Amino acid sequence: MSTATKNAKARGPLNGVDTPTLFATIDAVKGNPEIAKFRFRARNRWISGTHNRSVIRDFYGACQEDTSRTEDFVYDADHPAVLVGEGNGPTPVEFLLHALAACLTSGLANIAAARGVKLTSVESTVEGDIDLLGILGLSDEVRNGYQGIKVGFRISGDAPEEVLRGLVEQSRARSAVYDVLTNGVSVRIDVATH
Amino acid sequence: MSTATKNAKARGPLNGVDTPTLFATIDAVKGNPEIAKFRFRARNRWISGTHNRSVIRDFYGACQEDTSRTEDFVYDADHPAVLVGEGNGPTPVEFLLHALAACLTSGLANIAAARGVKLTSVESTVEGDIDLLGILGLSDEVRNGYQGIKVGFRISGDAPEEVLRGLVEQSRARSAVYDVLTNGVSVRIDVATH
Repeated sequence: MSTATKNAKARGPLNGVDTPTLFATIDAVKGNPEIAKFRFRARNRWISGTHNRSVIRDFYGACQEDTSRTEDFVYDADHPAVLVGEGNGPTPVEFLLHALAACLTSGLANIAAARGVKLTSVESTVEGDIDLLGILGLSDEVRNGYQGIKVGFRISGDAPEEVLRGLVEQSRARSAVYDVLTNGVSVRIDVATH
Repeated sequence: MSTATKNAKARGPLNGVDTPTLFATIDAVKGNPEIAKFRFRARNRWISGTHNRSVIRDFYGACQEDTSRTEDFVYDADHPAVLVGEGNGPTPVEFLLHALAACLTSGLANIAAARGVKLTSVESTVEGDIDLLGILGLSDEVRNGYQGIKVGFRISGDAPEEVLRGLVEQSRARSAVYDVLTNGVSVRIDVATH
């Protein structure tokens, strides 16, 4: 174990991150990699038009079905009026932007705690450009999804600028959502009718 | 214009989809492709630990900043206790599953209306498998993000099985979220410190 790692492990909680438990969790996974296998889920139900609703609650991880969540997380999605919906929720593509901001920010707080950097504030704006000629079926040259996504972070904390920038870089390098969005993932769709 | 398209355009609202307005919107975009360019946004703020919050409201589209949303959509994300968070919201990666289910379902309702298929119910479960050896930095061979996503649809409506399956297939073929998740998108990250 390097001196840097020993020092990191000796640190107490920081930024609201329980750093000792975080390191203990990493050690536990090293001892039994099986507990790192997770399966997350969302269950969606169509309501009317472009309005639908997802429930997020159960997941599998650490070798068992999780029972820690005592309530459902419920999210509506819809199209706005300009896209012939009723605006009962954000569009599906806006949830992708939230997921990206949230993943980079969660990781950043963990990494800052592990490195002993006290954060004061972390804000980000994520923007995605999309040309609807794709999804409207009006062009085969225009892709359906975002043509590009930009994330702007504004960070303050008790560390020099290059250290704060390093937190974002390490968070990016280990972000699950960034990986999926930039590298893609296979999606299988099965259909049952009745 | 084909007879099929003429017939589709003559259809009234169905499934809660304002089909005439949907076709009128597509015609408007044909006449001025500039109105198809949209920019969506999410603004995120770190709260504590892995807990953070996004606000979704404003977007640009149809050649102007949208003003139809009179309230913010607010979403928290966090890690569960087993991942050293406090469970104040779903994990960021779970929002990706919601986005995918919502996008495929919205599209399906539109396509069904355009094809004159009355839907009775549309439900889906989306599952994503992830091995946290990646994001924990314990393996360079394991990717950070999902290794695969599975979507299971259960659909009923007043059409034969093959027609219902065709709705899912066409929705997949024109889904913005499916495109981004399966093909990836470039993400640029800028950082300001202060």
